[in-house]
Amino acid sequence: ICEIYMGLREFVKTFFLGFWDYETPKVMVVKNRTLGIIYRSVYLLVTTYFIWYVFISQKAYQESETRPESSVYTRMKGTALLGDTMQDMVEYVRPTEGGDVISTILRREVTYNQRQGVCAEHYSVPHANCTSDLDCTGIEVSFEGHGQRTGRCIPYYNYTFKTCEIRTWCPIEEFAAVREPALEEAINFTVYIKNTIHFPKFKVLRGNIKPKRGKYLSRCTYNEETDPYCPIFRLGYIAEQARENFSELCQTGGVIGVFINWNCDFDMDPSKCIPTYSFRRLDVRKNLPSSGYNYRFAKYYSRNDKEFRTLIKAYGIRLDVIVHGHAGKFSIIPTIINMVTAMTSVGICSLICDWILLTFIDKNEVYSEKKFDEVSEESPPVTLTDITLTSYGSIHSDLSEGVAL
Amino acid sequence: ICEIYMGLREFVKTFFLGFWDYETPKVMVVKNRTLGIIYRSVYLLVTTYFIWYVFISQKAYQESETRPESSVYTRMKGTALLGDTMQDMVEYVRPTEGGDVISTILRREVTYNQRQGVCAEHYSVPHANCTSDLDCTGIEVSFEGHGQRTGRCIPYYNYTFKTCEIRTWCPIEEFAAVREPALEEAINFTVYIKNTIHFPKFKVLRGNIKPKRGKYLSRCTYNEETDPYCPIFRLGYIAEQARENFSELCQTGGVIGVFINWNCDFDMDPSKCIPTYSFRRLDVRKNLPSSGYNYRFAKYYSRNDKEFRTLIKAYGIRLDVIVHGHAGKFSIIPTIINMVTAMTSVGICSLICDWILLTFIDKNEVYSEKKFDEVSEESPPVTLTDITLTSYGSIHSDLSEGVAL
Amino acid sequence: ICEIYMGLREFVKTFFLGFWDYETPKVMVVKNRTLGIIYRSVYLLVTTYFIWYVFISQKAYQESETRPESSVYTRMKGTALLGDTMQDMVEYVRPTEGGDVISTILRREVTYNQRQGVCAEHYSVPHANCTSDLDCTGIEVSFEGHGQRTGRCIPYYNYTFKTCEIRTWCPIEEFAAVREPALEEAINFTVYIKNTIHFPKFKVLRGNIKPKRGKYLSRCTYNEETDPYCPIFRLGYIAEQARENFSELCQTGGVIGVFINWNCDFDMDPSKCIPTYSFRRLDVRKNLPSSGYNYRFAKYYSRNDKEFRTLIKAYGIRLDVIVHGHAGKFSIIPTIINMVTAMTSVGICSLICDWILLTFIDKNEVYSEKKFDEVSEESPPVTLTDITLTSYGSIHSDLSEGVAL
Repeated sequence: ICEIYMGLREFVKTFFLGFWDYETPKVMVVKNRTLGIIYRSVYLLVTTYFIWYVFISQKAYQESETRPESSVYTRMKGTALLGDTMQDMVEYVRPTEGGDVISTILRREVTYNQRQGVCAEHYSVPHANCTSDLDCTGIEVSFEGHGQRTGRCIPYYNYTFKTCEIRTWCPIEEFAAVREPALEEAINFTVYIKNTIHFPKFKVLRGNIKPKRGKYLSRCTYNEETDPYCPIFRLGYIAEQARENFSELCQTGGVIGVFINWNCDFDMDPSKCIPTYSFRRLDVRKNLPSSGYNYRFAKYYSRNDKEFRTLIKAYGIRLDVIVHGHAGKFSIIPTIINMVTAMTSVGICSLICDWILLTFIDKNEVYSEKKFDEVSEESPPVTLTDITLTSYGSIHSDLSEGVAL
Repeated sequence: ICEIYMGLREFVKTFFLGFWDYETPKVMVVKNRTLGIIYRSVYLLVTTYFIWYVFISQKAYQESETRPESSVYTRMKGTALLGDTMQDMVEYVRPTEGGDVISTILRREVTYNQRQGVCAEHYSVPHANCTSDLDCTGIEVSFEGHGQRTGRCIPYYNYTFKTCEIRTWCPIEEFAAVREPALEEAINFTVYIKNTIHFPKFKVLRGNIKPKRGKYLSRCTYNEETDPYCPIFRLGYIAEQARENFSELCQTGGVIGVFINWNCDFDMDPSKCIPTYSFRRLDVRKNLPSSGYNYRFAKYYSRNDKEFRTLIKAYGIRLDVIVHGHAGKFSIIPTIINMVTAMTSVGICSLICDWILLTFIDKNEVYSEKKFDEVSEESPPVTLTDITLTSYGSIHSDLSEGVAL
Repeated sequence: ICEIYMGLREFVKTFFLGFWDYETPKVMVVKNRTLGIIYRSVYLLVTTYFIWYVFISQKAYQESETRPESSVYTRMKGTALLGDTMQDMVEYVRPTEGGDVISTILRREVTYNQRQGVCAEHYSVPHANCTSDLDCTGIEVSFEGHGQRTGRCIPYYNYTFKTCEIRTWCPIEEFAAVREPALEEAINFTVYIKNTIHFPKFKVLRGNIKPKRGKYLSRCTYNEETDPYCPIFRLGYIAEQARENFSELCQTGGVIGVFINWNCDFDMDPSKCIPTYSFRRLDVRKNLPSSGYNYRFAKYYSRNDKEFRTLIKAYGIRLDVIVHGHAGKFSIIPTIINMVTAMTSVGICSLICDWILLTFIDKNEVYSEKKFDEVSEESPPVTLTDITLTSYGSIHSDLSEGVAL
């Protein structure tokens, strides 16, 4: 209590008397060339690191924004010959709305005119093969199977052997699917990718399209060297950039990422803020049982009030457009903070040098004597041993004086 | 001017003469056990915090990447008995393309054979009930209503009362919708989730599928204990993990988040980088008027050149696959920075101890006298009072010597 | 070797003898009013910056989470008169599943009853005009064209001139498309946006819907002043907020971002955590050749086993719902770190003052003499010059004592 009271009393006093005094640490100047060189070189090292790495390379004087608002609009174009019919994008592109994920069909396996009914189960399904109805008892839906068993054993379509009858969409895909040829012409399909990006913090809005007059956009295709401002990409170009074989993609399908990277420095003219494109296959391709990309959908028809469907298993390329954005602009606060940090972190020099000084330099006793001033309850005469002994402890406190980062 | 000139002159001189000197603060060694113990314990505390929390727990020696590139491919599988028909995934899964959002229908309310025409408004609509055409005047489209009023008052389908006639898709859903039973078997549907993740900074590509030979993927289902490498999930399992009642979901529908968490330490073998899955219902379930998940879509038919549609209101489960990724790898720069920070922040010890030393320890006048060396314009003889008075001010400057973080 | 051994020996000794000593820097107290004032004012400046900017404005005492898990469910409502038919949302909204991207059709260009066949190429296509079959030789699919040339030259539909015949979906869109009027009533369509957000770190789940009894949600529409808790937005309101002319949107279509911003301080009652909505057009509108938003899709029919399609080019509004979340909560660790940082960064004061002290204050020789204590191999008598010369070097080391941030 008493101490606290004293503390308070002094505290008040201080503010009215000692308040305007200025304290500065007392310093011992060591005229030692070796030490000086060590000190200055460490000093140089730290400074260089900060000026070069932190400020120049890391742009620490900028405040940055890494999660801009982005909008992507995609549209595919192209026509391809399929058998004796001519197909256009409406047939191949899904979803049609043109968001940041768009897929085009490259190969189809079509099962025409499926309808609810009963037909023979596929022979590959476990326990599907049968010789008599007895083999097909039990009406549970086996997870492997394609439908619910009726319990009868019927001829397998136009073959000689028999399988269990099931209730499902008939005929079953495995038997009736028509495997269409791959759409090799699709290599010339183009995808138009419009990307607009907005950095709220800096209030900058940028698009990846350079306004040009005329029908520029309707003719150009992107090429890193010759035509970097045209946001229209050939599927062939994309596959090539992603180091994929297009014919292989036509067979298995695949997911390819289209990366749009905005790296902007708004200390320069925003018009210099231009995206770069990169492409990489996103689904692992190792020979997995289920590699590639495919999906099923159906078209529905009605004939004399019966519902029919055409089931389509589609293999294709799915493009995932992924936008990365990073923008920086000079700002005073990070600049100050980093500069001060830089200046203080040279403290690590004193740390190192003190240690050297007090340990390895000859006659460090002399230095210690000058540096350290012992005070103890009974104020003993200072002896060399004492000093040397304390020389290490001193480093601990030097830490607390010197280094900062 | 003169001062500045002097300053410059000295500055230059310094660089040629004083440049190689090394300065180190003079230190007073206090041989006081109490203080020493306090100092060392605070010291220990700070050190422990850094070593344990910052380095071990927070892995401050690593540079990290938190926003990897991720690709998700989903596919549902399963067949279910609906009335006397057998339905497969093509009927139930939307969208079909298998992106990171996939929904399956669990219950349908189907309105067959709607076509453009005129029919009776639903009786629940305000002012729809009528006795004569006069009640139905005005052809504006009321926002509540289902269509545009013709102004006539007609019998409500096969009932006795009358409502206003409207022009719309007839018959109206409220009257004609057929409520199908819920698809309870859907609890055994499975969703196959293929996720590939790429950390650009570390150039590591990982997938959630462990290549296994044979038809492993076609049979397994995920189970945290027994089968953690199989990315095929039963809807029942998902609902259970999300603490939802599946039957309830079948009635109202719901949105469930599938969280794939990659937490990788690339200082170890990347093959140790394996995802964990978690599931949580995303839409608030409190008894809101519009809880759950449902949507409407239509199938279109044409009969003798008239367009018909079958309107389907679908209740179902929507799975949002959300991928979180965090990877760390040793890097020299954060390590240095954090170590230096650690070392310097022990400065807080001096801060505390100085304050104690100069306030609460007996004979602090002695210490003060040793610590402080007053210099003033007229260099007065140093008096005890002066010293004690300044003892507090000193703390302020100690701050500027000592602590750092 | 010997030195290192010595170092070790001393190190050990230290730990057993000097370990409990406490070191504190010796300080020179300068009784100089000018300096004191400068020191205190810089001191005040730095402190203010920290207390006001860092703690109050930046809430540095909180740990924050910026990437919450979010779930969006959207549904559109409304009916509109199109010619003499009444259309509802099922006709206009795509995709139907109600995710975070939803689009509504505002204007359609419909091409009825297209079917595979041969018909005349559009005259605008290069080299399409012809006088004899010779002009149409070559069966390659020109990228500009709509299909594959048969090589014959036929009359252009019911016109006098001739173009090359092509195999494609006939008739071609450019010729047969029926341009429907824009859906101006759509200005009264409403979109219901349900957003649930989850902050894993703080275990807080919030929704943008305030549970209200009765049919509140079925009637209200959002208005910032009068009805901020109703998540139902009129398209007209959205367009207005985005500063867009709705009629113009009806013609060209457009992509509008709906930004839901959650800015939560969980030191207060979580129920105070309420989202704000903002709207902005996302696609650049500068008169680009391909401005606006449109897409094509088809409805398929079958008539006596021939497949027909109705091709629809849809202009509309696409709403991208983008959720931003930021939450903060008091946490001890950032608080300590920032407080210590604050305290230490006042060191910049000493830095400045020392420099002033040793350069511009009169009689700085006196101060220097007191501050610096030279020690060199041959311990020369300290001369004034020496001192002044070193005065600058001292600043470098002051850096390492003083500043910290």
